[in-house]
Amino acid sequence: MSKLVFIRHGQSEWNLKNLFTGWTDVNLSENGVAEAKEAGRKLKDAGIQLDQAYTSVLKRAIMTLHYALEESDQLWIPEVKSWRLNERHYGDLQGQNKAEAAEKFGEEQVHIWRRSYDVLPPMLSEDDPRSAAQDRRYANLDPNVIPGGENLKVTLERVMPFWEDHIAPDLLAGKNVIVAAHGNSLRALTKYLEGISDDDIINLEIPTGQPIVYDLDENLKVVDKKQL
Amino acid sequence: MSKLVFIRHGQSEWNLKNLFTGWTDVNLSENGVAEAKEAGRKLKDAGIQLDQAYTSVLKRAIMTLHYALEESDQLWIPEVKSWRLNERHYGDLQGQNKAEAAEKFGEEQVHIWRRSYDVLPPMLSEDDPRSAAQDRRYANLDPNVIPGGENLKVTLERVMPFWEDHIAPDLLAGKNVIVAAHGNSLRALTKYLEGISDDDIINLEIPTGQPIVYDLDENLKVVDKKQL
Repeated sequence: MSKLVFIRHGQSEWNLKNLFTGWTDVNLSENGVAEAKEAGRKLKDAGIQLDQAYTSVLKRAIMTLHYALEESDQLWIPEVKSWRLNERHYGDLQGQNKAEAAEKFGEEQVHIWRRSYDVLPPMLSEDDPRSAAQDRRYANLDPNVIPGGENLKVTLERVMPFWEDHIAPDLLAGKNVIVAAHGNSLRALTKYLEGISDDDIINLEIPTGQPIVYDLDENLKVVDKKQL
Repeated sequence: MSKLVFIRHGQSEWNLKNLFTGWTDVNLSENGVAEAKEAGRKLKDAGIQLDQAYTSVLKRAIMTLHYALEESDQLWIPEVKSWRLNERHYGDLQGQNKAEAAEKFGEEQVHIWRRSYDVLPPMLSEDDPRSAAQDRRYANLDPNVIPGGENLKVTLERVMPFWEDHIAPDLLAGKNVIVAAHGNSLRALTKYLEGISDDDIINLEIPTGQPIVYDLDENLKVVDKKQL
């Protein structure tokens, strides 16, 4: 039996400013740092011994992982970062204020972009300075897979290969794994793990900075789930 | 042409207390954290774009790396930790006060342990609670390679396979590599890179928290070296 721990990064500077973030690489706020450290203390108090860490290439998730591992005295475990664990790409909405977007496009449209499973946001062109195509960290990606915007369905489709190739093999080998990531990449994994429907998954809120611990059996079925 | 950056961790809590540290996993002091952040700002100011990070499994080096990458906006680069980059194992001296050891064993003996290339320190038994054999992070190592104490020669012998299998291939592929490690693991790499003799290497001091940047040609010969 293996343990799988999810941790969603704590508050970021753009959460505070009410901006759409997506793949924008913003810092944790002071509060977000405190949340990550507290998560680490909870892991330590629960006696959870981790073997492998995965995170995105966005620093709010990476730093959440580092603080949590540091506080639980496990900073030495191997860590792999992947764009596949990134937040949902919010397209041209990235950097826009959520309230201003609601005024500009209408409350209902923004609600659809935020909460539908398969409606895409307005797309970001690859020439846009905000585009991941302009960012050195994605230089080794086939340009065709660099998103201009994603819904949760597309996010899930790019997260799952990482589950299949990295997380699941580790769990099957008996390792305890921590995944420090984002609201929507963790939603995608949770949808798969718990068999949640397309309609229901968009209402699932994953709390920030709270380790969620799954016990999985040898077929990766969920035997137990608790939030620390 | 590739760049290779060495950074020796900054001051630790045991440096402050004047204790032999070796493989003991002690924290950076406040000053050590400040040194690491300053190193990151220097990397950023120098415009050094890194592709791959390597560090030990000891948190004073790992945290130095993280702070330096965070400050230089490169926390997203891949990172691999290895016991092969650990500090020299100081055997039974680990945890002893350096001044007290000099009183107990004599100044000259302690000087020999600290400064000779190939004299081993008093060995630590694997039953000792301080032994790496008791530490979960080394559980996947062949018990025969877990050291009870090392000199610089033995340190070099276990560092070099990591150079050969990881660092050198990356450099030959044109990647810029950062190695955040320890006085003696970096001495070992410096001895090899610069062709320093057994007698001279023990007098080479690698400064803490100062990025040392090598430009290497396609045969991994040093073309330029500067300290930021």
